[in-house]
Amino acid sequence: MSHTPLLTDLLRKKRDGESLQPDEIRHFIAGVADDTIPDYQVGAMLMAVFLRGLDDGELGVWADAMVHSGDVLDLSGIDRPKVDKHSTGGVGDKISLCLAPAVAACGVAVPMISGRGLGHSGGTLDKLEAIPGFRVDLPSDRFIELVDQLGLCLIGQTARLAPADRRLYALRDVTATVESIPLIASSIMSKKLAEGIDALVLDCKVGRGAFMKTVEQARALGEAIRVIGRAAGKRVSVLLTEMDAPIGQAVGNATEVAEAIAVLRGGGPADTRELTVRLGAEMLVLAGVVEQQTEGATRIEAALDGGAGLALFGRVVEAQGGDPRVIDDPDAVLPQAPERLDITASVAGVVTAVDALAVGHAGLALGAGRARKEDQIDHAAGIDILARVGDRVEVGQVVARLRHRGRGADDAADQVRDAFTIATGEQPARAPGSRIIEELR
Amino acid sequence: MSHTPLLTDLLRKKRDGESLQPDEIRHFIAGVADDTIPDYQVGAMLMAVFLRGLDDGELGVWADAMVHSGDVLDLSGIDRPKVDKHSTGGVGDKISLCLAPAVAACGVAVPMISGRGLGHSGGTLDKLEAIPGFRVDLPSDRFIELVDQLGLCLIGQTARLAPADRRLYALRDVTATVESIPLIASSIMSKKLAEGIDALVLDCKVGRGAFMKTVEQARALGEAIRVIGRAAGKRVSVLLTEMDAPIGQAVGNATEVAEAIAVLRGGGPADTRELTVRLGAEMLVLAGVVEQQTEGATRIEAALDGGAGLALFGRVVEAQGGDPRVIDDPDAVLPQAPERLDITASVAGVVTAVDALAVGHAGLALGAGRARKEDQIDHAAGIDILARVGDRVEVGQVVARLRHRGRGADDAADQVRDAFTIATGEQPARAPGSRIIEELR
Repeated sequence: MSHTPLLTDLLRKKRDGESLQPDEIRHFIAGVADDTIPDYQVGAMLMAVFLRGLDDGELGVWADAMVHSGDVLDLSGIDRPKVDKHSTGGVGDKISLCLAPAVAACGVAVPMISGRGLGHSGGTLDKLEAIPGFRVDLPSDRFIELVDQLGLCLIGQTARLAPADRRLYALRDVTATVESIPLIASSIMSKKLAEGIDALVLDCKVGRGAFMKTVEQARALGEAIRVIGRAAGKRVSVLLTEMDAPIGQAVGNATEVAEAIAVLRGGGPADTRELTVRLGAEMLVLAGVVEQQTEGATRIEAALDGGAGLALFGRVVEAQGGDPRVIDDPDAVLPQAPERLDITASVAGVVTAVDALAVGHAGLALGAGRARKEDQIDHAAGIDILARVGDRVEVGQVVARLRHRGRGADDAADQVRDAFTIATGEQPARAPGSRIIEELR
Repeated sequence: MSHTPLLTDLLRKKRDGESLQPDEIRHFIAGVADDTIPDYQVGAMLMAVFLRGLDDGELGVWADAMVHSGDVLDLSGIDRPKVDKHSTGGVGDKISLCLAPAVAACGVAVPMISGRGLGHSGGTLDKLEAIPGFRVDLPSDRFIELVDQLGLCLIGQTARLAPADRRLYALRDVTATVESIPLIASSIMSKKLAEGIDALVLDCKVGRGAFMKTVEQARALGEAIRVIGRAAGKRVSVLLTEMDAPIGQAVGNATEVAEAIAVLRGGGPADTRELTVRLGAEMLVLAGVVEQQTEGATRIEAALDGGAGLALFGRVVEAQGGDPRVIDDPDAVLPQAPERLDITASVAGVVTAVDALAVGHAGLALGAGRARKEDQIDHAAGIDILARVGDRVEVGQVVARLRHRGRGADDAADQVRDAFTIATGEQPARAPGSRIIEELR
């Protein structure tokens, strides 16, 4: 490039609401990644982007520059279509654990690079590490090898993937610029596109326990994700899904693995299975394995009910150093908390809400999550939500059970108790609705 | 304070257009001054303030917090009213040099802490240092002593005055947040209010050679300055003055000192004298020395024409280590450039414009100013504008003269030549108008 843009000129343009040129965006992101742009200019740019936004043209280039700030995995040696799923984060969201093996069992390669939990929201890596021996820090050549051999591997982000995102992510946190649609979308997509995928399904959570509180916000994020996907020439579908109450029954690391295995056995809570089937069906459509969603759903259901997904999960666990007996006897293999504390209903009626955010915070109190990045996790701690939205409960009935080691149990009990809203009176139980709000294709 | 605000909360509020509370603003400014707030948060806050602004309540507290981030001079031992003048910066603006002695000669104490030139705009300290031996780095107790004894002392900012401003000023420069009315106003006022003054006259320059290009911008800055003054309980008047063409005849350091001395002898260019009289009259009104502007003007004119201002200037020069003979024979005492280069008119007609910005840049090329803070200045270099706006000129007539040492003379000559707009034809000369655009009192 013959022309090196001045950072102050870039800041001035963005500040004044003008669009940045592609070379200007690439210069900025490269300077973020190699630390040649000082913190004060990155902080000022993040605030300017927060307040002025990025247009569609800028957004595609911004994300692409982030992808190419580091390594992009080369999966071209793998014949199968490569499709991944990303969730914006929720409470009890163990869907990756049952979805990825089921999809891989249907002939799709799933190169899944995941994150850790922070705040009320859990992370796939932490859940996997609840399986004794499971390694999420495989080198990328081994990752590619396993995706090729098994159709699936699940690891954490390496330092060489999207390094610009690592710095921007840390600085957004301390400059109050987290809640920006283009910054969120480009952060997500920079990591996913660096996986070398052909297509992506985004599970965009909406509600009390989600980052996006309204459908409008979630739709805007979904559209931004799709803009980036289009610019990169990747097929991207977005499902907006409801995240007011925890997903399924289990919240915590070991307990969520057990629930995912139940789904891989054809069982599990209806909503956990629904999300697995719907997101999996969409992945099969994007992969070109099936033409229609309904056909995809049938294929995923078969992979769950026939055990192909479970068997594949067992092979992946073993290949990544984990104890493969977990798929046959989860309770014997997964760490168990020594104590249980039952939460009971103080009134009779129908459960109309279980506040996922409150349950997430209760999990944090028990040590199932991290308040700060450096916190240690207790994989055995967690909460089982036994009465779900729509259920009728009687006075004294156990509605939730804490798995704990003493730490934070009183706090957590209060929070879980308060999380339940029970409409008193003679009304009957209601069947739970679908968690799927809408689909952007 | 029992409550320590989180910086991210402050950033979020300002980002979302909310007003910051006084304790929040004070926490931020204190953290800027003592370096406990990192660069990325200061950069992000500057951008948020740039885009969201500060309301009047915030502005007063922000500036006050900046003032009290360092020492405030205690001039309470001086009986006379303490009044200063500040100019937002122009080309050929030597007004402080003739104004301050004239006002001090009328019984007002003028504690003047000035800055250096940067870019096309000159600085009072550099001009004073053109006088051999003149020291602008006196300790503050000596400064107060001289203000008490002589009514005037002129020094540079010390490290202990408004340290928050020093950091914000440097960071604004590199985060494209310079052109923000509240940030400019609070920067100016933090330094001026730290002088311990009772009142201030702001000369707010408007036009091609000024920072504020339009009357609207200048008025907004003037109003912000007045808001800060009111909050601090200080009387502040603002004059908007025209800055399209250089002020007076001299542009450069030694040559501007000579012009200021000419004004202090009752002579000098009409516009230089006009600004001196008008700004001085306003200072006398604010000081309570006179009731009316017209009476103030008469007093200042008397101080110029009767030599009282000149005599006082001589005493100040001597007290600050300079050669006092400068007031009697400026050309013999001030450094002289070895070479002259005349710029002549290529057409006959009436001068309709002399572009102050172009002349300022020509001065920079000659070494009379600084492109960067660390540049050395040639005090002898400069430009004399011999044909002024409204003058009739003939072909070959000398319209400007460069004072130089060879360096940059060709560049400067081109720029000065291009700075002149001459309307050809038979039209007569026009009398120059007033530079005073309006007054905010």
